[in-house]
Amino acid sequence: MSDDFNLNCPVPIDNHKTVQLAHGGGGRMMRGLVEGTFLPAFAEKGKPFVPHDSAVLEPCDGRLAFTTDSFVISPLFFPGGDIGRLAVYGTVNDLAMAGAKPLYLSDGFILEEGLSMETLRRVVCSMRDAAAEVGVRIVTGDTKVVDRGQCDGIFINTAGIGAVPDGVEFSPGRVTPGDAVLVSGDLGRHGIAVMSVREGLEFEGALPSDCASLAGLVDAMLAAAADVHCLRDLTRGGLAAAVIEIAQHAGVGIELEESAIPIAEPVAGACELLGLDPLYVANEGRLAAVVRAEAAEVVLEIMQSHPAAQRPTIIGTVTDRHAGVVELRGPLGGRRIVDELSGEQMPRIC
Amino acid sequence: MSDDFNLNCPVPIDNHKTVQLAHGGGGRMMRGLVEGTFLPAFAEKGKPFVPHDSAVLEPCDGRLAFTTDSFVISPLFFPGGDIGRLAVYGTVNDLAMAGAKPLYLSDGFILEEGLSMETLRRVVCSMRDAAAEVGVRIVTGDTKVVDRGQCDGIFINTAGIGAVPDGVEFSPGRVTPGDAVLVSGDLGRHGIAVMSVREGLEFEGALPSDCASLAGLVDAMLAAAADVHCLRDLTRGGLAAAVIEIAQHAGVGIELEESAIPIAEPVAGACELLGLDPLYVANEGRLAAVVRAEAAEVVLEIMQSHPAAQRPTIIGTVTDRHAGVVELRGPLGGRRIVDELSGEQMPRIC
Repeated sequence: MSDDFNLNCPVPIDNHKTVQLAHGGGGRMMRGLVEGTFLPAFAEKGKPFVPHDSAVLEPCDGRLAFTTDSFVISPLFFPGGDIGRLAVYGTVNDLAMAGAKPLYLSDGFILEEGLSMETLRRVVCSMRDAAAEVGVRIVTGDTKVVDRGQCDGIFINTAGIGAVPDGVEFSPGRVTPGDAVLVSGDLGRHGIAVMSVREGLEFEGALPSDCASLAGLVDAMLAAAADVHCLRDLTRGGLAAAVIEIAQHAGVGIELEESAIPIAEPVAGACELLGLDPLYVANEGRLAAVVRAEAAEVVLEIMQSHPAAQRPTIIGTVTDRHAGVVELRGPLGGRRIVDELSGEQMPRIC
Repeated sequence: MSDDFNLNCPVPIDNHKTVQLAHGGGGRMMRGLVEGTFLPAFAEKGKPFVPHDSAVLEPCDGRLAFTTDSFVISPLFFPGGDIGRLAVYGTVNDLAMAGAKPLYLSDGFILEEGLSMETLRRVVCSMRDAAAEVGVRIVTGDTKVVDRGQCDGIFINTAGIGAVPDGVEFSPGRVTPGDAVLVSGDLGRHGIAVMSVREGLEFEGALPSDCASLAGLVDAMLAAAADVHCLRDLTRGGLAAAVIEIAQHAGVGIELEESAIPIAEPVAGACELLGLDPLYVANEGRLAAVVRAEAAEVVLEIMQSHPAAQRPTIIGTVTDRHAGVVELRGPLGGRRIVDELSGEQMPRIC
């Protein structure tokens, strides 16, 4: 159970203690769920609610960023977050990686018949709080209910729209030999936090997920007009998957300094215990930035003064050798290739 | 199995015969699935694919419409359509009901481990064909895989963005006593087509779902500058749920002529057999239009000459009696109230 869950959430509880098939049926019960649970959390205060098949939104300035993610994480609650926070941050972060200001989210719930209403309510409040924190509005949604045993509790899809400021282009195509590679914080917390609940492991010291919005951090980079070429959040497949993808699509090599990559002590210990490589473990509030060499120190300073970053570090450089290959240089100078895994070390991590 | 499935679809089959957990893991197998199955179907021809966390799209003219729907229909294939077509048309139709020109879709797949790749490929081709037919682009997506037994085959979420032309406002707020109520075609086909597969029923004569895009029909109304006040597509909860919602939010009464409501003979027969009321049965290619009385004949003519409409009919009028109530006038002049059901008569219909 997430410790920071806001128990003062004003969302009224549906009279039903559990979700029924009829809550997804388009009739009175669905209306009760929408008007009693979703609207109080997501609707704009002081505006009358008019149900519509689509939200109609004011014109956006600039290009649009558009993205989607489904969340099927198990368990629903984990140290430092829950599926609701994840569903907001995950899509917000995907928008931020394109340099976009996140504006609007949709939510699509797939609920299992028999799910506790109290659980649903906690998740909805969590989404509300995360959206308010980021300054993004949840403007449209959908609810489906499937029979008991045909989904696992709650699946959430969020799609997001953001506005990309003129002149901003973050893309592997801009990555150039000589660029510096940074990470915004220590790696592997999210995956290990989830695994610790699943496996019933206890670690010395708290080990919450890094689950957080990266939009503010990207905003700070944009405000400083830092020469950022490409950003990636380090979700499924971890740092390794993200930098391999950049190297392949930019047609460059990337060399990482093993000793520079920040890993918290409990994460390193847990990875050893579980036989996991932290470079491949999922994060939900970390990004890799590829920036012009001359901008590396500036971007590092921006990260150091931003609360969403923790132990940000310059971890490597882009090279013109071995296009598409990521190499890890060990403390004694030896090199090994960072391979692409076939899958994820842990399923249902997000 | 849908008869009109395009077996010449050029999407290469993944070497795996079934979906594995690793197909959702962010590694090589997920890349294989994306680059081998989704991109050939959805990516723009002749443009290099650059993977990104978000799609970046040209600025839109006018206000934005934004909507989302998850599709959990069982079975995946039914007479006249499948979950892929439904996932495209459903979201396109929600955009069209706001008067928006549908522009972009996202797709979020949740797949069950062990799902046949051939099934996935058929669904993806179906989405591709439906999107091409409507002229909407699938620009961003996400794939999650859950363990066997933790979802039922395939769930799909689509979110959509459309552009609302200046001056267009379709909303219950514009509905006024005296307005005419029309439906674009006969009711209940989708629900009965799905039930016939589930229950193993055979009907005399073909009974395909009405599953179709309504965007072209709405376009034709806009082009004619017809005085349309409010549109609703008649999905979950059928005609009854849609008109009750309009009556309640517009604060008006709605009176429907029972004998005018078009129901195809096999649908009427099946409803009798199954104990269903066709007014509440789901459609996936029908809309109700509330229009200024003087515009009713024009809108009817537009519908009559459009292939997405079938037996379009003026079925009732908006009144200033009994705000929020929908009444059905029988052939002999008797009236009964159309009640809001608590749920849907059939779960997992979309």
